[in-house]
Amino acid sequence: MSKPTPISGFPEWTPSQRMIEQFVLDRIRDTFELHGFAPLETRAVEPLDQLLRKGETSKEVYLIRRLQADVDGPAGDDALGLHFDLTVPFARYVLENAGRLQFPFRRYQIQKVWRGERPQEGRYREFLQADIDIVDRDTLGAHHEAEMPLVIGDALGSLPIPPVRIQVNNRKICEGFYRGIGLTDPEAALRAVDKLDKIGPGRVADLLAETAGASEAQAKACLALAEISAPDASFGDAVRALGVSDPLLDEGIEELVRVVETAADHSPGLCVADLRIARGLDYYTGTVYETQMIGYERFGSVCSGGRYDNLASSGTARFPGVGISIGVTRLLGLLFGAGALSVSRDVPTCVLVAVVNEEQRGASNRVADALRSRGIPTEVSPSAAKFGKQIRYAERRGIPYVWFPGVEGAADEVKDIRSGGQVAAAAGEWTPPREDLKPLVG
Amino acid sequence: MSKPTPISGFPEWTPSQRMIEQFVLDRIRDTFELHGFAPLETRAVEPLDQLLRKGETSKEVYLIRRLQADVDGPAGDDALGLHFDLTVPFARYVLENAGRLQFPFRRYQIQKVWRGERPQEGRYREFLQADIDIVDRDTLGAHHEAEMPLVIGDALGSLPIPPVRIQVNNRKICEGFYRGIGLTDPEAALRAVDKLDKIGPGRVADLLAETAGASEAQAKACLALAEISAPDASFGDAVRALGVSDPLLDEGIEELVRVVETAADHSPGLCVADLRIARGLDYYTGTVYETQMIGYERFGSVCSGGRYDNLASSGTARFPGVGISIGVTRLLGLLFGAGALSVSRDVPTCVLVAVVNEEQRGASNRVADALRSRGIPTEVSPSAAKFGKQIRYAERRGIPYVWFPGVEGAADEVKDIRSGGQVAAAAGEWTPPREDLKPLVG
Repeated sequence: MSKPTPISGFPEWTPSQRMIEQFVLDRIRDTFELHGFAPLETRAVEPLDQLLRKGETSKEVYLIRRLQADVDGPAGDDALGLHFDLTVPFARYVLENAGRLQFPFRRYQIQKVWRGERPQEGRYREFLQADIDIVDRDTLGAHHEAEMPLVIGDALGSLPIPPVRIQVNNRKICEGFYRGIGLTDPEAALRAVDKLDKIGPGRVADLLAETAGASEAQAKACLALAEISAPDASFGDAVRALGVSDPLLDEGIEELVRVVETAADHSPGLCVADLRIARGLDYYTGTVYETQMIGYERFGSVCSGGRYDNLASSGTARFPGVGISIGVTRLLGLLFGAGALSVSRDVPTCVLVAVVNEEQRGASNRVADALRSRGIPTEVSPSAAKFGKQIRYAERRGIPYVWFPGVEGAADEVKDIRSGGQVAAAAGEWTPPREDLKPLVG
Repeated sequence: MSKPTPISGFPEWTPSQRMIEQFVLDRIRDTFELHGFAPLETRAVEPLDQLLRKGETSKEVYLIRRLQADVDGPAGDDALGLHFDLTVPFARYVLENAGRLQFPFRRYQIQKVWRGERPQEGRYREFLQADIDIVDRDTLGAHHEAEMPLVIGDALGSLPIPPVRIQVNNRKICEGFYRGIGLTDPEAALRAVDKLDKIGPGRVADLLAETAGASEAQAKACLALAEISAPDASFGDAVRALGVSDPLLDEGIEELVRVVETAADHSPGLCVADLRIARGLDYYTGTVYETQMIGYERFGSVCSGGRYDNLASSGTARFPGVGISIGVTRLLGLLFGAGALSVSRDVPTCVLVAVVNEEQRGASNRVADALRSRGIPTEVSPSAAKFGKQIRYAERRGIPYVWFPGVEGAADEVKDIRSGGQVAAAAGEWTPPREDLKPLVG
């Protein structure tokens, strides 16, 4: 066969990068579990009608079909698609299993998702997300909206990455404000303001006029609201100074004050109220979150989410939720691209056991067994070549130690191939320095 | 929306089962890393021509296409499908990245795969596999074929599951023997013998006659070979007693003796030479492996693989490999079905911090912070209901401790809700017994 080539939008990390990714995922998972979130995985596929139920996402879905299935043109009602996020499958899971779950239900979910978008920098067709969500039956305490940034602050703070800033807003502020100034289609207004970073205030004003029927004064007011940003409750004064009054607006301000103040109490500097944050997806109804990595702001959000009151409901049953999602592939893609993350070696192996000759491979296997039984990652040399060649095998992979089984009654010896130092050692006792045991990520 | 229902063949574990699965995956991964395998993930999709390159797999592939793509009938040359195993993508990865990899290359890979099969007991359309492979450039030492069962023995031996028996065979024995008795299509013969467990010797003999052109005597010889089984090198004597001579047969016996004897040396009782093992996929060329869980033999193999010399080759470059794959979903599906695995609680949480009233939620948050900073998984109560109700929240999830923040200068107290015992405690010092810290799997 001819040499295969990459497929645009479907990234593959090197083994070293995958070691870094696993380190990152382990830290994220530990943090989620420290906060009492239970793990969940959902299947990769959902019925197409589920995937198309909310928001402007229809263009992003990948359909699947069996190669041997009848080719009969467009997908039928029972068509399956790959999930494009983890929130929609989670909402479906909650409805399907509501009778067996304890509410409020706290879960985390770390899985690949797929979107049939045109690939571009920082955008992938297959990527990994790490989500937390809390759903309750009928009503969900607003304090959970304040809880999300604390968990994310801890999770991202546990990683060897630049500090982050979580930008928060509340849909009720935007919707209440838009209504308060007399706009009748707040969703259209939201969608226009969501494009502020991309197309600038002038074109957003045009869009507000075109799609939300805003007058010049109304568009100006929307833009004035979007410009408000503060790390504390003072954003509320700035909103009120715009002179708009609406009960939903007041409710939103109150909720957002709580989010910002809880964050300031727990992690000063982590959160900022930023009233331009809208989030494109339609299902959010309260607090919304975006997250920028300091120094990487131009690449957009690496962790986003919000509160949704209507995503999981069936008949009279209603399961309001709040969630946030770390874009792991996006985060790592940025940092790998900048050379900002590295690992101390290319393999997990700490010790390579040399093989004196093929007849004595069994002796080397026994040394490896003894080292592994004490938690020391160990390989046996793939060949009984000259020791110089076996040492180079270790060197090329960054394996720090080579072990030489003693022959004819002599003691075993272990060599630190970085310093060249070589000492007598017993496989049942020798232990490497702690920092050499596993690859270090930094 | 109406209540969603499961999709046949796409299993979803409960959060408790997912905790067990994660425990299992952590153990498997630790073992793979102890043996010096580096992690790799490949994308979920491969070009269709890659997927159809080898073996009888075309009926199993799921194609993907963008919902918005033109519907133009059958898939074109650039069609993408979901991978149905991790070996074919790995072979492709090796070819694509050969210039950047160090050989021999040892990698593990734990990912979902998809097969468009009709679902039946123990068969899934989406399932998780945990693979190890070693590939080298040009030639691969036969000792790596003996190494695979040792790694798998350690990995599965680290789990709270029934003991396993790895059945090994060597394609060279079958092919050499079939040639030695004058059959000209050894692959057809292999495929017939592979059905022995399913359809029995009588119908296999018929199939050998129909598809491999075997005479009655030849079919009888094939079945006699397939009946040979021994935990040690004595299988070789049994083969030779059948009076067939062929150089490939001798080579196969020698290689299989090495696998069985190495295993006996390392893990007595783990491996047995079983000459009925054929493996359906065409790409194996040497040792093949299947694995039965003792007491669950009727469900078939939970861990299979083999040596493949021709899967990864491009022009003059050739990368022979050997690998083995743990069917994690299948293994867990069997054990969950039998109620043979459990976890000590339904959430990671060790401590629930009670909330005295909503105004003092901040105080409870600070207790939780202090406990988490010392690695104790902690939740704050979702409501400031009566303490009895908050305790029931913990009870229903199996959370062992409830923490009561002291009011008006009183000390905090922590209650073990199983015993009812309650003691004064400081969040910066109190530590639960080790066995309560995390959910226990057994």
